[in-house]
Amino acid sequence: MNPIFANLPTTVFEVMSSLARETGAINLGQGFPDDPGPEDVRRKAADEALNGYNQYPSMMGIPDLRNAIATHYKHWQGLDLDATTEVMVTSGATEALAGAILGIVEPGDEVVLFEPMYDAYLPLVRLAGGIPRFVTLQPPHFRLTEEALAKAFSPKTKAVLFNNPLNPTATIFSAEDLALLAEYCRRHDAIVISDEVWEHVVFDGRRHQPILGLDGMRERAVKIGSAGKIFSLTGWKVGFVCAAPHILKVLAKSHQFLTFTTPPNLQAAVAYGLGKDDSYFEGMRQNFARSRDRFVAGLTTLGFDVIPSQGTYFVNIDIAALGETDDVAFCRRLVMEHGVAAIPVSAFYAEGAVKNVVRFCFAKKDSTLDAGLERLAGAM
Amino acid sequence: MNPIFANLPTTVFEVMSSLARETGAINLGQGFPDDPGPEDVRRKAADEALNGYNQYPSMMGIPDLRNAIATHYKHWQGLDLDATTEVMVTSGATEALAGAILGIVEPGDEVVLFEPMYDAYLPLVRLAGGIPRFVTLQPPHFRLTEEALAKAFSPKTKAVLFNNPLNPTATIFSAEDLALLAEYCRRHDAIVISDEVWEHVVFDGRRHQPILGLDGMRERAVKIGSAGKIFSLTGWKVGFVCAAPHILKVLAKSHQFLTFTTPPNLQAAVAYGLGKDDSYFEGMRQNFARSRDRFVAGLTTLGFDVIPSQGTYFVNIDIAALGETDDVAFCRRLVMEHGVAAIPVSAFYAEGAVKNVVRFCFAKKDSTLDAGLERLAGAM
Ligand SMILES: CSCCC(=O)C(=O)O
Ligand SMILES: CSCCC(=O)C(=O)O
Repeated sequence: MNPIFANLPTTVFEVMSSLARETGAINLGQGFPDDPGPEDVRRKAADEALNGYNQYPSMMGIPDLRNAIATHYKHWQGLDLDATTEVMVTSGATEALAGAILGIVEPGDEVVLFEPMYDAYLPLVRLAGGIPRFVTLQPPHFRLTEEALAKAFSPKTKAVLFNNPLNPTATIFSAEDLALLAEYCRRHDAIVISDEVWEHVVFDGRRHQPILGLDGMRERAVKIGSAGKIFSLTGWKVGFVCAAPHILKVLAKSHQFLTFTTPPNLQAAVAYGLGKDDSYFEGMRQNFARSRDRFVAGLTTLGFDVIPSQGTYFVNIDIAALGETDDVAFCRRLVMEHGVAAIPVSAFYAEGAVKNVVRFCFAKKDSTLDAGLERLAGAM
Repeated sequence: MNPIFANLPTTVFEVMSSLARETGAINLGQGFPDDPGPEDVRRKAADEALNGYNQYPSMMGIPDLRNAIATHYKHWQGLDLDATTEVMVTSGATEALAGAILGIVEPGDEVVLFEPMYDAYLPLVRLAGGIPRFVTLQPPHFRLTEEALAKAFSPKTKAVLFNNPLNPTATIFSAEDLALLAEYCRRHDAIVISDEVWEHVVFDGRRHQPILGLDGMRERAVKIGSAGKIFSLTGWKVGFVCAAPHILKVLAKSHQFLTFTTPPNLQAAVAYGLGKDDSYFEGMRQNFARSRDRFVAGLTTLGFDVIPSQGTYFVNIDIAALGETDDVAFCRRLVMEHGVAAIPVSAFYAEGAVKNVVRFCFAKKDSTLDAGLERLAGAM
């Protein structure tokens, strides 16, 4: 068996969700919302499954959805994408990431990765035969620095894996950070694979800036989005890839052999959903911000040391002040003894892991958050 | 860009379907049915999308579906699979294939492939760093021979990619063929990745025999199935993998990083569908056989040289008798001048391609088949 996979643990998100299911714990681990997603979007998916076309759609995605994606990003982020040559639908952002890495990286290529990082990145880089070059981002701001980039980039740098807004830190890179990264990509002729699945979930008036939109980046950025995150329908596994034609042409080939295509009823429903007006997306953000505020207030009242959340469904606590030095042991105790599943942030590191940060998902009903807080009180 | 993908053509199935869409041709190329799929199964998917759970399901598949798969294969093929450790749901059989190849094959491993072969196999083997060893199956029976296997297997053989019933030839391997292949796999300690997506679509009283069920193969076979093919819902992209626990454990890891999971509403509907009784599956087979007979009769009347179809949605014609020596040129003419899309079988070869066989999909309404035949008359 391939040792890249044979030696890997099951993803911490699945482990924690399984434990939560088995023990009846409140699941504040894996990032999915209590919200069932917009009813009209689900109704459209239902109608299409029953009355629509259920055979192979076009491999690149149904035209309605590709057009809706281009229109949405034009209106919302000012991007000028050609729906036919620069937009592709994938079976979730995970497939988009896998396809981008396998399509771009060749054995021996160097790939810059920023820690903490989502746990799929490194195995996929290894699978492609890429050589990881890590940049460890430093709390509390997790900013890019010239010094770190200068160390990580080399003449062999083929690609950069970037995540903005950043999971698990719940931070958003600044315009200066993005400009710096873009400069390094241009200078080293590197492609940035930009995982922007949290682009819609940003708070306190912040706005997401796609790196694809920066000067000279149109030719060297792969933008990855997720309908699951946008519409609180994480199980639908409908993702998007936007990239210049010469890149997308190759990613279409890896897509061809990884999943080939994505269920047309869900694609049609997402196309419909993307047609919603700004107030829908703004309302969604406000709801999540309200949940964040409620949960953070509760954690603070309990005496937890909360690290501010600027975006994503997540907020972190620093457990050092509790005298804890092992986030994994802490999370295990939380779920087994106190009935709350959370994510140990050390799972997002390949080396030199931080061991004092724990991530909670607050995209839950008030009653779920309150019950979680009540149980967390016992852990103080 | 990774040259394995950068240098590949778009899959012939997509090329032909696109041409058909653009030109208004009758699409008898890509394998998908006119039949919209069972209404009750679609209704279940619709109901679940609207009223069910739409967040990440368990990574291995929802328990209802894993149990339904195990029960279905037990009842129908006599397999005794443990739903928890030996069954996994994937986002279509393509993902199942990709995950199996990437999970099992390491750089330098040899992989035995049988030509003609589905066009995803070879690029995936190359992506995994595997070294292909081809066995060319000979018309009209496309049987395995001891001589060919002896040449293809070596001490470095890690895996075999096998497809039964075989697309595009529409043939079914005999019990002797399977026993011979199993013997070689055991002798060389090789794993057979067995693409059995057409297992339900077999005609004239034939029965599909899963290689996983043969002596000593339980520990070395990966069985791949497809709900899309079983229920005529090819766009749903719900596939299954069955394998011994020590293999499935590794394939779960590649799955984790390729798509992670599959839409729960579609999984629930497939679970429901697999509960149908034998008469449903038998009726489905009879309908396809009737379509095959109608189409074959029409082709024969027109004077085409038809190669018998034992299973799958497909039937082939030999165009040598028409004085044709280039299946690709013939298919291009068929679609552009006569308004019928078909598949040139040379697309299923990496080397020494047969150039005189053309594949048609007959899983269509009578009116579609009749209209196709009328147009084909013009090509004689
Ligand atoms: C694919 S499960 C992980 C979901 C998620 O984005 C997270 O919890 O970080
Ligand atoms: C993934 S498109 C190909 C469908 C199919 O199985 C075929 O036409 O052979």
